[in-house]
Formats: sequence, C-alpha cells, structure tokens
Amino acid sequence: MKTKIAVLGAGSWGSILASVLVQNGHEVWLWTRHREQAQELNELHTNQRYMKDYHYPHALHATTNLAQSVHNAALILFTVPTPAIRAVAQQVLTHLKQTKVARPLIVHASKGLEQGTHLRISEILHQTIPADFRSGIVALSGPSHAEEVARQDLTLITAASNQVTAAQQVQQLFMNDYFRVYTNTDLIGVELGAAFKNIIALGAGALHGLGYGDNAKAALMTRGLAEITRLGVALGAKPLTFIGLSGVGDLIVTCTSIHSRNWRAGNQLGQGQPLAAVVANMGMVIEGVKTCQAAYELAQQQQVEMPITEAIYHVLYEKADIKQEIKLLMRREGKAEL
Amino acid sequence: MKTKIAVLGAGSWGSILASVLVQNGHEVWLWTRHREQAQELNELHTNQRYMKDYHYPHALHATTNLAQSVHNAALILFTVPTPAIRAVAQQVLTHLKQTKVARPLIVHASKGLEQGTHLRISEILHQTIPADFRSGIVALSGPSHAEEVARQDLTLITAASNQVTAAQQVQQLFMNDYFRVYTNTDLIGVELGAAFKNIIALGAGALHGLGYGDNAKAALMTRGLAEITRLGVALGAKPLTFIGLSGVGDLIVTCTSIHSRNWRAGNQLGQGQPLAAVVANMGMVIEGVKTCQAAYELAQQQQVEMPITEAIYHVLYEKADIKQEIKLLMRREGKAEL
Repeated sequence: MKTKIAVLGAGSWGSILASVLVQNGHEVWLWTRHREQAQELNELHTNQRYMKDYHYPHALHATTNLAQSVHNAALILFTVPTPAIRAVAQQVLTHLKQTKVARPLIVHASKGLEQGTHLRISEILHQTIPADFRSGIVALSGPSHAEEVARQDLTLITAASNQVTAAQQVQQLFMNDYFRVYTNTDLIGVELGAAFKNIIALGAGALHGLGYGDNAKAALMTRGLAEITRLGVALGAKPLTFIGLSGVGDLIVTCTSIHSRNWRAGNQLGQGQPLAAVVANMGMVIEGVKTCQAAYELAQQQQVEMPITEAIYHVLYEKADIKQEIKLLMRREGKAEL
Repeated sequence: MKTKIAVLGAGSWGSILASVLVQNGHEVWLWTRHREQAQELNELHTNQRYMKDYHYPHALHATTNLAQSVHNAALILFTVPTPAIRAVAQQVLTHLKQTKVARPLIVHASKGLEQGTHLRISEILHQTIPADFRSGIVALSGPSHAEEVARQDLTLITAASNQVTAAQQVQQLFMNDYFRVYTNTDLIGVELGAAFKNIIALGAGALHGLGYGDNAKAALMTRGLAEITRLGVALGAKPLTFIGLSGVGDLIVTCTSIHSRNWRAGNQLGQGQPLAAVVANMGMVIEGVKTCQAAYELAQQQQVEMPITEAIYHVLYEKADIKQEIKLLMRREGKAEL
C-alpha cells in the first residue's frame, strides 16, 4: 500500500533511505534546509555533495517546506544530526498541531546522545512530541554504509521500539530484497550501542595509527563491547542487544572501515597529532569525542568499570600519553572475562 | 616461580606459545614428531616452515621424545590439530601412568569438534586422561595471529575451565605485558565459539568472492554470531561468552583477515570454484567445511534454526547455487532480531 512518508535531512543516509522507500512504492517527501539541494534533487535527481554519481528515483520529492513534507505523513523519519534533533522535532510538532490526521509513526536513524542531558534520541523525541500527536517511536540502526545501500548491495538493519507493532510497521515499509529489517524491542540497547560504538572506533583507529595489529584491534573491539554492554545494562538495556546489528554489527563496520570519521580521527591521534589538530583536520563533528565524555560521566554515575573509555577520555581531555595509557591497560591485574 | 611446561605440537601457534612461556621464565619442552624440526629449533633457534624469520629463545627445549617433554611437567599444553588430539592424549596418558608426580594441568589451544562424535576437545581430553592422572582441563582461545604474538604486539585471550582455579593458574603462567589472559568458567561456550566461527568465516569469504560489501559482511557476521550463539546455548553454553574474546573477538580476526584459511576457502567458493578444487588448492584441512556439517547435524538434533549454516551446508554438500541461497536468505519473512 502506498504510504506518505517524510524524511527529514538529506545527507547521504537520509537521502538513500528516502530512495529505498520510493523503490518500495511509497510517496516520499525529503526535507532539506537548502534550496539548491532540493532543486538539484528535483531537477537533476542527484545530490552530488553527499552521494557522488548516484541517481535518485524521479518519483522522490525534495522540499524545503517542512509543513509540506510532514502534512498527512504516516511516518516521519528523522535523519538530521543529533544536535539538531530537538529543534527540528519542535518545528514538526507545530505542524502536527495544525492538522487533525492520524498520528504518524516517529522514526529516527541518527546516532548519539544529547550533549549535557545525555538523553537518547528517542527520549528527546518523546519529550518534544507528546503522545497525542504521534504513534510509536522507532530507532533504525545497524551496519550500513549509504553507498552500499545505494548500489543495492545487501544490508541488514534493526528497527527498535518499545512497541513491537510500531517496529513491525517500520519493518514492512522499509524491507525489500536487498534491505532486510529485523525488529527489536530493546530501544535503549539499540540506541546506546549505536552511540557508544563510536568511542571504540576512536580507539581502534588509534591502535592502527600506533602500528598495532589485528589481535590488538580485535581485543579492543571485544573488551570495548564488553564495557559498553556493562554500561548499557546499567542504563536499562538488554545485554544480548549488544551482540546484534546495532551493537557488534555496527561496531564491525565502524572499526574496520577507513571511511568512518571516528576511526580516522583515532588514527590521527595514534599517529601523534593533538586533538585540536585532528578536530580541525576533520572539519566536522567527531561524534565519538563527545560520546566518550558522556559515557565517562555516565560510567561514574553508575559506578561501571570502563577502562578503555577512561583511557580514551584521559587522552582526549587530560592530555594523557596514549602509549602510557595502553601500558597501564595491559598491566592491570588479571581479570575474569565476564 | 619457574615451572616445567610441555607444549605438544610445534606449528606456528604452539611454538609461539612455547616462546611466550620461556620469556615468562618457565622451563618449556616443545614436542614435535619431526626430528629435523626439533634439531632446527635447538640448534638454529628457528622454525622456518611455520614462523619465517623468527628467532626462538635459546632456553626453549625442543624434543621428539614425548616422555621427556611431559615428565614432571606441571602443565601439558596440546596444540596439535583436532583430529590428532585423541591419539596424542592416549600417548601422554601412558607416560603419566608411569610416573607418580603431581597431576598436571591439561590445557589445549586447538579449535574444532571431533569428527563423527562432535565432541569438544576438552571432552576428548576428559575421556582420554582420567581425573586420577591430571588436575583441571583448560581451553585457551581468542583472537591471536601467531605472527603478531611473535613480535610482541598486544594480544588478549581467554583461559576457560569448569574449575576457576585451573583457569587462574593458566592466567598466571601465560600472562605478561603484551599477552593478557582473562579467565572464563564457560568452557562449553569458549570451545563452541572457537569451532563454529569457522563456518561464518567461510561465509564471509564467499560474500567477498561474490563482490558484496562491508554492510553484507557485517550483517553475516552478526546474524552468524546470533545463530551459533543459539546453537551454543542449546548445547549448554552461556550466551554472553559469544560476545567475548573466543566468540566475537576471534570471529573478527578470522572474518577480516585474508590470512584465515577458512576465509580464503570461502572467497574461492564465492568466485565460483567448486569445493573439490578449493580443497585441492588449499592443500590442507579446511576446518569450517567439517564444522559446518557438525553444526548442521547438531542444529537438527537440537531443533535450532540456523539459516546461514544451512545455506552454507547446501552449497558445500548439496551443490546448491550460492547466489540462489543468498536470495532465499534475504527473502525470508521479516523476523525479530532476538
């Protein structure tokens, strides 16, 4: 059944998810703040800044008019960066209040925690859009380079919600022969896994920059996964979610791909560049740097041991020597694995 | 404290573990069947066939005399291939019966299940060497290319035993600044993870050979991990062990390294070569091919759903078309992740 869907944010991931939805037969309105980008998408069916050489389906509608995109939409998908989620959700609410239609599903495909509050994205959406104006809230997450989805390579992701029916609706709308969607009811675990894995990606990049090998990298990923699982569980997540697509799956693509911004930042740190220079080089937000601080503070509140996150925190925020931190990690007393 | 240790099997992993133990100050006797290899190790301190360009510590003793190696040893480490474990253990028992000393710890660092019986290696050792002649049985497992341990890169592994004190003794003997050992009491989970991961490595190689990307590979590893965890749990393992060093850690190095024999075999299958040709090319046992059959049979007995293992089984043993199997996997009805 053809469904009207609004996709908010026309970066690489948002625009490709919009493309998948059009291919699945839906009416999709892709919202961007940038007039030239909307025009390029509507007239040339390209989005060169984000998806070089990809041609979007002609049936995709791009618009800078938020009201037009969300009007009567059965599903609103947020793909804007984490720091923009609250403001965009507030604008969406204004429009939802003006129309009296079926309450839309609220879905997001962003990763991170709100700075200062440490709120998960679904919590921000839950706070900002009251239940009278929406149905369930769903997070979409998993190992997914947009470029590979664009060329219809195989991708598996997870749709997580406290309400299983909401996750199932998302599954039905998004799933096709090359894009397989699983449902998950552990929204907390899925969102925390997606956020925290960027800390481990920084560490994996740093090990590479320092010249360490595959054993060290696999060990860091494994022990990193163990500690983000511990923190996640303390915050209400189910441990097995971290063994899933949004946990270990996303960790694998992020830590083994040189395309990952967090991995690249870690690699530069490992090569001896100071944080300020790395941030300047990257020219955009390095999510893992902020998430490391959030996880460090949450771990202290929850009294969870996170030796890797603490070591990365010391390097990022307290000018600790990275080689010295690795030595200290290796010289800790012998431990049990679980 | 200096401890006498016998290491049985002088392949790359056994000889490097022996080297670690010598560096830790122990008296190590490395047993091999091959006279020239023992001579090379004792006189030239090299083992060119297995560890090109590596120099072993002069204090390492190599011998072809099994009795000499295990006589009065406080620990006997088996590193011979899985099919040889039972026969070597029987020979060891003969020697243990002839001497009346403290019962040695029995440790192994091999991976796989016994053909036909589907027994884990610790079960074979348990059957073959009665409790009167040994103390605990420990499995040593984790992400560990021998070459990287040789150059004292960082490596983390797990020592698993039903008896925590046995695992802790192994931890103390093996651990140093570059080789960190965790203890684990889920012997079943550690051994099954180490064995089953080779099936997933075959699949990851096949996806690469077929030209699929990182999303597909991360998805296969994640869903593969989910199904080997399901089978493991049905066989008595703890689910969280699969998130550990012997599970996801070893899976990561095996599936992302072109040095893995199983990955390379899968890659050739993906490129369209028939199994017989692949086996002939490799010139040695492809552990995952045998383990796939064992897992397939165990899954049927335990009534555990293992779609990836089944698909690989169909390709290996029933000449199914690999692309068709992938299509069938992607077209299954939508599922919950856990």
